[in-house]
Amino acid sequence: MERGRFEKGKASIAFEEGPLIIGCASVAGKKEGEGPLGEYFDVIEPDPMLGRETWEEAESALQKEAADLAIEHAGLVRSEVRYLFAGDLLGQLIATSFGTVDLEVPVFGLYGACSTIGEALCLGAMAVEAGYAANVMSMASSHFASAEKQFRFPLEYGNQRPFSSTWTVTGCGSFILGKKGGHVRITGATPGKIVDMGLKDSMNMGACMAPAACDTICRNLEDFGRRPEDYDRIITGDLGEVGQKILLDFMRSSGYDLEGLHMDCGIEIFDKETQDTHAGGSGCGCSAVVLAACIVPKLASGEWRRVLFVPTGALMSSTSYNEGQSVPGIAHGIVLEHC
Amino acid sequence: MERGRFEKGKASIAFEEGPLIIGCASVAGKKEGEGPLGEYFDVIEPDPMLGRETWEEAESALQKEAADLAIEHAGLVRSEVRYLFAGDLLGQLIATSFGTVDLEVPVFGLYGACSTIGEALCLGAMAVEAGYAANVMSMASSHFASAEKQFRFPLEYGNQRPFSSTWTVTGCGSFILGKKGGHVRITGATPGKIVDMGLKDSMNMGACMAPAACDTICRNLEDFGRRPEDYDRIITGDLGEVGQKILLDFMRSSGYDLEGLHMDCGIEIFDKETQDTHAGGSGCGCSAVVLAACIVPKLASGEWRRVLFVPTGALMSSTSYNEGQSVPGIAHGIVLEHC
Repeated sequence: MERGRFEKGKASIAFEEGPLIIGCASVAGKKEGEGPLGEYFDVIEPDPMLGRETWEEAESALQKEAADLAIEHAGLVRSEVRYLFAGDLLGQLIATSFGTVDLEVPVFGLYGACSTIGEALCLGAMAVEAGYAANVMSMASSHFASAEKQFRFPLEYGNQRPFSSTWTVTGCGSFILGKKGGHVRITGATPGKIVDMGLKDSMNMGACMAPAACDTICRNLEDFGRRPEDYDRIITGDLGEVGQKILLDFMRSSGYDLEGLHMDCGIEIFDKETQDTHAGGSGCGCSAVVLAACIVPKLASGEWRRVLFVPTGALMSSTSYNEGQSVPGIAHGIVLEHC
Repeated sequence: MERGRFEKGKASIAFEEGPLIIGCASVAGKKEGEGPLGEYFDVIEPDPMLGRETWEEAESALQKEAADLAIEHAGLVRSEVRYLFAGDLLGQLIATSFGTVDLEVPVFGLYGACSTIGEALCLGAMAVEAGYAANVMSMASSHFASAEKQFRFPLEYGNQRPFSSTWTVTGCGSFILGKKGGHVRITGATPGKIVDMGLKDSMNMGACMAPAACDTICRNLEDFGRRPEDYDRIITGDLGEVGQKILLDFMRSSGYDLEGLHMDCGIEIFDKETQDTHAGGSGCGCSAVVLAACIVPKLASGEWRRVLFVPTGALMSSTSYNEGQSVPGIAHGIVLEHC
């Protein structure tokens, strides 16, 4: 498939040049640091408040730190970042608004629930590829405590959580996209459609998101004329163990076997035996920090040559599920290649 | 200024071809229909619930209606819209998620508070200009009752509102951007930075947003090497009467006189003497419906040749202002020309 072809039903973009990830950074919380991927994060914050007064300010602080570190890793200064594509899980994106004001960079605020980093990378790559910017930043964050407060119960309430539930990752991943530097190229993108199968269980987000992940992965494979084996890994954001099973089943029904190829950032980030995180990690920060800490390095080294990265989001608010609405899913696919 | 020039401090984009607004639609509420612009809206919904069960579903219904009408006005069918750039004011964009699922179009969810239609038009134009899509949709909505519930008090509480406060518009504006058709071209964009002057009064959003509007307008004039008179109108989103005074003062301090050139969608949409709306209208829907109903037609007819459209947003949530945070502003500038 070529750029500029608008075949009916095709939604993917094949980048001709392909913007490079010229720098990235992961800032994670203490629990994430104690997990299986702990050694790979750039920064592990021991204090969940990051020295701030509120959970929301703490999340903003994660963004500030990740943004500046990614800029440093790219060998740039703030004024060389032309646009920022960023978001978080909180109502009206307050973690992003207050976390990025000091950058003084024009901001496109994004919301794709936990798929936000996919949306940010897609739009950022589109901007760089088209020549609208030399360098842009794509970033997403989440914080366990600000998310629990936003979507579920105050932490002090000590509610019980079903085994299908996931644990919101405290972390922020930030990426600088540009035309020169680094060894990881964004060669394609498959922006996601909203898929609503009518599921209503906000404590089982993996099941709500799996159909959207399946839709995006299938469209990616069809649009690019690829088989799953053309990717070293197909990596979803935060389906967790329940969602993974459903995705593999759905993919099998669509004629694709992902067994051995599929990986999920939410499953990788925590040790479910020792960390009591049930189905896995979730949140915008989950796939963003795993991408920065683990996926980009494996692609940069050439251990992996091509990966389909598919952050997944559950579209809901406390208002929508309290009003009995379903929880639709969305997933944005990003093709990453070693170069 | 040319496309692809990355001069330090410049953030604007000059489109070479310039995507066209090939169709648009405005759906407004009863109160908006009774205002000075009532005769220009495509649809006026007499029932604030639009026959739905909740305010949020009613807002989603506004989006559905505006989306289909814009597609019809552009002479397209749903499957010819390649991407959707859309947002609303509600936490986690639920009006958009549930309002657009039936379109089955890949969605980029956006949040720029009341500036969202500017963000959506900017990204949509970038996508069409670069050849990523033949046609895209840019859309934003708000609903008085869902916004009051989200940000302020339940309607039943009957709180008093200071004269600096604005009235959230019930409405949705939808725009189809493409390469052929229509007489209004998007020739440039100035994406906005977040500007935080430390103001904390969420009941005076005009004052909170005026500095951001000033920043974006000044950067637009500098980046494009224009004077205010090079525009037939410079039209902000929802500064209202208080914000307008501040903007004109700020602009004067920056060496620009906007007197007679400045217009504000929030001031135009209601009659403050008879409609008890205090400083004016606000909400994502305010600038979006005024653009579709009044600005695009005047540009299409040639009555106006060039307009700078600057939707303005106040970045806050009930959490952020209850925690004592300031209310930063953002404004995205879109250059629209008759062709």
